[in-house]
Amino acid sequence: MKKVKIGFLGLGVVGQGVWKHISRNKETLQQKLGVKLELSKAVVSDLKRKRHIRISQKKMSLDPDFVLKDPDIQIVCELVGGVTQAKKWIEQALRAGKCVVTANKALICEYGESLFALAHKNGVRLFYEASVAGGIPVIKTLREGLVANRIENIHGILNGTSNYILTRMEEENSDFPPILEAARKLGYVEADEALDLDGIDAAHKTVILAYLALGHWVSLKSIKIEGIRNISLSDIQLAKEFGYRIKLVAHICPNFSKKSVFVGVFPTLLPETYPMAKVDQVFNAVSITGDVLGTTTLVGRGAGQDATASSVISDIADSVLALKNSHQDQNGAILQDLASDFSITPMDQVQGCFYLRLKVVDQPGVLAKIASVMARYQISIARMIQKSSDDSQNANLIFTTHKSNEKAITQVSSHLARLKIVQEKPLLIRIFEPANT
Amino acid sequence: MKKVKIGFLGLGVVGQGVWKHISRNKETLQQKLGVKLELSKAVVSDLKRKRHIRISQKKMSLDPDFVLKDPDIQIVCELVGGVTQAKKWIEQALRAGKCVVTANKALICEYGESLFALAHKNGVRLFYEASVAGGIPVIKTLREGLVANRIENIHGILNGTSNYILTRMEEENSDFPPILEAARKLGYVEADEALDLDGIDAAHKTVILAYLALGHWVSLKSIKIEGIRNISLSDIQLAKEFGYRIKLVAHICPNFSKKSVFVGVFPTLLPETYPMAKVDQVFNAVSITGDVLGTTTLVGRGAGQDATASSVISDIADSVLALKNSHQDQNGAILQDLASDFSITPMDQVQGCFYLRLKVVDQPGVLAKIASVMARYQISIARMIQKSSDDSQNANLIFTTHKSNEKAITQVSSHLARLKIVQEKPLLIRIFEPANT
Repeated sequence: MKKVKIGFLGLGVVGQGVWKHISRNKETLQQKLGVKLELSKAVVSDLKRKRHIRISQKKMSLDPDFVLKDPDIQIVCELVGGVTQAKKWIEQALRAGKCVVTANKALICEYGESLFALAHKNGVRLFYEASVAGGIPVIKTLREGLVANRIENIHGILNGTSNYILTRMEEENSDFPPILEAARKLGYVEADEALDLDGIDAAHKTVILAYLALGHWVSLKSIKIEGIRNISLSDIQLAKEFGYRIKLVAHICPNFSKKSVFVGVFPTLLPETYPMAKVDQVFNAVSITGDVLGTTTLVGRGAGQDATASSVISDIADSVLALKNSHQDQNGAILQDLASDFSITPMDQVQGCFYLRLKVVDQPGVLAKIASVMARYQISIARMIQKSSDDSQNANLIFTTHKSNEKAITQVSSHLARLKIVQEKPLLIRIFEPANT
Repeated sequence: MKKVKIGFLGLGVVGQGVWKHISRNKETLQQKLGVKLELSKAVVSDLKRKRHIRISQKKMSLDPDFVLKDPDIQIVCELVGGVTQAKKWIEQALRAGKCVVTANKALICEYGESLFALAHKNGVRLFYEASVAGGIPVIKTLREGLVANRIENIHGILNGTSNYILTRMEEENSDFPPILEAARKLGYVEADEALDLDGIDAAHKTVILAYLALGHWVSLKSIKIEGIRNISLSDIQLAKEFGYRIKLVAHICPNFSKKSVFVGVFPTLLPETYPMAKVDQVFNAVSITGDVLGTTTLVGRGAGQDATASSVISDIADSVLALKNSHQDQNGAILQDLASDFSITPMDQVQGCFYLRLKVVDQPGVLAKIASVMARYQISIARMIQKSSDDSQNANLIFTTHKSNEKAITQVSSHLARLKIVQEKPLLIRIFEPANT
């Protein structure tokens, strides 16, 4: 049997998971792939750190060339995270003719286009299944399983940490800060907290899915990204009264006739009967609608050592097959880059229903004033609830709207924010309407 | 660009769907695959039948050799259904060195082992994504996406028709016969109704999934198969009172230390909070638990022209890649046949909780008698409800049990059936306990 040597860049939580599971299931994996697998070498940042795997000191080095310049290593797993260094190393590996497997969503989001071009130029493959939705094989599904389909919609819960926080807020009737603190203690929140709390991590993944769906790289800066910091317990409870649950949802909605796409990540009210509304805790879910298949939904663990390792190892398997068939070249694979050109759908062409929460002075005439502002922008109210506020002079008004123009409702929100009777920045959350597919 | 010719055996509902969608999305598909696709020829049973696709008469023939003996056709789609003829034709195609794509679950279930061996011997590939769960890419997910995992459990809703019937019975408070009649009118029920109503179709798919999970072909005859004919509206309603919904569920539960596997298809009570309990209508769902990944669940359309076509086309894409890489041979693919040897887990080693419905004479002492029978077999009762029956002399007793031995509870059921006070064959339904993964 031919031998394939695997080198690691980074041997942290995920790297050790990959190492551990390949060691454990080695015999079966080798049988399935028809090659011998060797966990060859790892580049680490600290030789002395305690690790939960068996690895001899002589297999580790601080020097990236230890892996990158070893001509016998055919597959490189980049699991260091971060962007600058990881990019440099992956480029070196691709130029050296190695297949690369990465779980690095920020990197693929930002530099995917040039990295895939470099891989193609060098006749090698770059795999990235673990970069989106952890262990759920969503990238393979989009690339291969749904190859027959034009992708008409994707939406999903792509950040486990924010889903965990929203779930616990609801379950424990707790506000955001104490649950965030608990999540930090469990190690669920990234060092750069904005990634989880401000929707950036989910947005990275959304950009990657949009590329897979449309063959077009959307710029992170061009899309709407909102996190969960402004969601209060009362929003969760009020949403419930209206029959919804609040989730941080990624949306990709192409309009093929206009060659435009609406892409965004923001808190969204999901009807509580909609299956994705019940995807709780750290779980992720992705719903994909294709023109042939209709809608298929994948649910599973979106993060964690083992789930991520599962995807990295499936990429290693695909790398092995590519090497075995000497079709490292993308010509042996389904080509994803269709070089389509999509613009971002302008806000005034986006329609949706909304939830609008206002804290107002509790005095006569307030509701009339607010309703007249909404009428001026052609926003039609579907339902309204008034709730007393923590402080007795104020009241909370919660509206849901009929289908409205996104630009108009945003203008309403800004307009209302400037009124003296409005005591806080209004909170606007989109309501999701499931398609009937 | 290289050209790949595709031949069809059968051009019924699914065949026309494949033809239609390849025609429509041809440009994108060709770009993704890097080859020209030609819908070359079709073998049909009636040249004059009205078809909803554009196909010239000279591309059709009644003679299978029209496709099978054409040396230019490299991919054959077998979409005739049935077993005997389809098997003969697939064998001829494989021997002629063609890649074969089939949606034929009965065939793969019964003859998969010999057909895969024949494909291997002839250095070609046999794909069958559409044979299980329609458009959901569950076979690719098991074979490739979860390649890192030892599969520890699979359960799923694999027959859309029975799911449709159970859903409508509940929604419309209707008993089985009128809903069956409605489903027949919609064309949802196979000509051989036992396939849908007695669990046979789901069992075919379960055997295929068990093979993918374990590399072992379970015999259809050796597994527990029960359909939905005995489920009454009152069972659905009573289950609801206990917090459950009734679904026809396929189960694959290997025990690796004993090298045994429990495989079966039977009505199952799913806790109503369990996501799969809400997979309704004709939708399918499959939950797969791997030792690395934990549990991932896939939901989507399990049947119908378009969903099935989506999977057939993804198999055609995989065939094209295999041909392009001149690795038609299975050595270029993930090998599934691990030649593992599993026995069927004996009933007395299977544990579960159960729902037991008894129609009994409504007189003093009956409950005591029944409880004493259950005690004799060490069955511990979790909950009990007594309901009046349609006829005033009788009553319905419904029990749920704590974890019990399957053999013992089956013996209890047989024992009770023989008692004079028991007026009908008892109905025994397993209660599903979700693992915490």
